[in-house]
Amino acid sequence: MAITLYTSGASIGVVSHIALEESGLEYQAIAMDFANKQQSSAEYLRINPKARVPSLIVEEGVITETPAILTYLAQIAPSSSIGLPDDPFEHAQIQSFNAYLCSTAHVAHAHKMRGTRWVNDEAALKAMTANVPTTMALCFEMIEHNMLKGPWVHGDNFSLSDPYLYRISSWAEADGVDIEQFPSIKAHRTAMAARDSVKVVEAFYNAHS
Amino acid sequence: MAITLYTSGASIGVVSHIALEESGLEYQAIAMDFANKQQSSAEYLRINPKARVPSLIVEEGVITETPAILTYLAQIAPSSSIGLPDDPFEHAQIQSFNAYLCSTAHVAHAHKMRGTRWVNDEAALKAMTANVPTTMALCFEMIEHNMLKGPWVHGDNFSLSDPYLYRISSWAEADGVDIEQFPSIKAHRTAMAARDSVKVVEAFYNAHS
Repeated sequence: MAITLYTSGASIGVVSHIALEESGLEYQAIAMDFANKQQSSAEYLRINPKARVPSLIVEEGVITETPAILTYLAQIAPSSSIGLPDDPFEHAQIQSFNAYLCSTAHVAHAHKMRGTRWVNDEAALKAMTANVPTTMALCFEMIEHNMLKGPWVHGDNFSLSDPYLYRISSWAEADGVDIEQFPSIKAHRTAMAARDSVKVVEAFYNAHS
Repeated sequence: MAITLYTSGASIGVVSHIALEESGLEYQAIAMDFANKQQSSAEYLRINPKARVPSLIVEEGVITETPAILTYLAQIAPSSSIGLPDDPFEHAQIQSFNAYLCSTAHVAHAHKMRGTRWVNDEAALKAMTANVPTTMALCFEMIEHNMLKGPWVHGDNFSLSDPYLYRISSWAEADGVDIEQFPSIKAHRTAMAARDSVKVVEAFYNAHS
């Protein structure tokens, strides 16, 4: 059975999409219509009751949450560019980086447009949105100075952390962050944009937007 | 070299602490003094520049972020109760559950006391805090009805997801959530509290508070 990814071009689903391209696995991607809230449709809620993307449909069922999808793809395509190292400590560094992006950087970003996940008060929502350039710059500082080894996130070898950082860093300008302040992240983004996997994925979303 | 866990009784560090007890590995736990902001001391920032717990110190270096520490411990203690399944799909379900707690449930909880991670405005902070009973109840609903299989999170077998849920569900009352509305989560919490690992960990924090 083919693997199916439910995704959207504005979302974190792009990370799993790039990982699928890197994996060499056969798959189909389905771009959800967020403008019409397709992610909250009864049909999609049967796939993912959290009403979010990405969801990965495989023979055994559904996998949700980016770090879990990435680990799964690495395990079924161990010889590809996203294969995980055998060493538990090296593996842990990849999971640690991805968990930071998942729970801190992505969450900081979400306070711009998705503040109603946490609060309904209009003034509070505005205050959250206004602070996103600051919180995202703090995340980029942490990544630039303490996490990104270069040229890839964990050094010489490409890993599951690279598509994840690419997605987050692609939000910099829209989130009010000056990417020029973070030269290593900028160089990483440029290197990622040159990969065939990213070109295929970007072309997909350009065709579906 | 012994494994060292930097943790605190009020924090998510408890999850890794219980996992260490379950693993059978030798370790020492160091309770950080959050009241005096020890997590922001120059000494600790050299261990973890994110100024958070947990941090796990192993021979090769430092591991941060709960999902990464849990996976690492499972990999070095594969025959213990926290060992990961060989099947990639089953493994992915554990990572998916943990990622949801890390990026959604824990983040919802953090809006009560740690709102300055996202905003500085006093009124906005109050609005965030006031909404925590609602957002946490939504998380518990999702877990109760769509995620927790019982008796353990993923069914008959204990896994890395169980200490994680225990920590989050132990916050229910303080977060304004009526645990009686979530009988499966309540039963899970009771079953966890009866485990030797949890008793050892709770005794540690009682002695260090």
